[in-house]
Amino acid sequence: MQESARIILGIDPGLANTGWGVLLQRGSRLSCQAYGCISTSKDLPLERRLRKIYEQMSAVVARYQPQCVGIETVWFGSNVQSAFATGQARGAALVACASREVAVSEFAPSQIKLAVVGAGSAEKEQVQYMVKQLLGLGVVPSPDHAADALAAAICFATHDFASYRGRGRS
Amino acid sequence: MQESARIILGIDPGLANTGWGVLLQRGSRLSCQAYGCISTSKDLPLERRLRKIYEQMSAVVARYQPQCVGIETVWFGSNVQSAFATGQARGAALVACASREVAVSEFAPSQIKLAVVGAGSAEKEQVQYMVKQLLGLGVVPSPDHAADALAAAICFATHDFASYRGRGRS
Repeated sequence: MQESARIILGIDPGLANTGWGVLLQRGSRLSCQAYGCISTSKDLPLERRLRKIYEQMSAVVARYQPQCVGIETVWFGSNVQSAFATGQARGAALVACASREVAVSEFAPSQIKLAVVGAGSAEKEQVQYMVKQLLGLGVVPSPDHAADALAAAICFATHDFASYRGRGRS
Repeated sequence: MQESARIILGIDPGLANTGWGVLLQRGSRLSCQAYGCISTSKDLPLERRLRKIYEQMSAVVARYQPQCVGIETVWFGSNVQSAFATGQARGAALVACASREVAVSEFAPSQIKLAVVGAGSAEKEQVQYMVKQLLGLGVVPSPDHAADALAAAICFATHDFASYRGRGRS
């Protein structure tokens, strides 16, 4: 029996650096298709930084045509200013995703750590190491933002696996 | 001597309600061209809400072709979750503005109150009343989000008046 495949985009949004990673899921198998990071200079006006995130994320979405998106939500312990900055970047990235009909799921940092490492309190380095292992990559994806984006995509794949298998085999 | 005119867009971003207002500034005279509010239902997925803000703000920008944008920045006293939500809406709105070459200026709530009422600690109702008075409107613009957006545009006009006069008369 042929199992259906789907493309999952993971995003780690930030005003200075927005990481992204694309996975192909076929049954329980995950493979990494591409990853990268959209960096914006703090010398640019805010609206140009947000536009760059939007345009480059739109290009990723157009190229890989994901059916679903996993994205980390804000950590409650963040301060107001960083939550505000991250929120703006996230808004720009999600507008790009919504140009196509993709299902966006949000995950708390602890959910992503639990899905990738098996412990909601895992260290950042453990998450990055497990991203490399789970995807059979030769090295830890760099920069960190790309690895974190792939972790969000893995979390989506794991979290949604039951319903996905159901759909794939019906 | 003919004084040059410019169009100023004010934005009061929010995930549920994003107010907007358009002013025409000719010398020291301000007139209201239009105002409104983009509302999104919390029953919609987040990415659809952000897309709606982006698309409707893009339509406002295309229709009125502002040269400049005034927007309120986050209040330090906000909580993390509301700053994050507002940040996302603001990101979506600013991506729409950056599709054209507009100058975006950010103002703290106290700067806007100072510009409109003459006191940085003014009450919300005083700001809305002064928006009506300064623009010679028959009623206070409704909803509140539209009045707050016009206040941000007035702040831009006042704040930037010296350099604008310099440009206009050179």
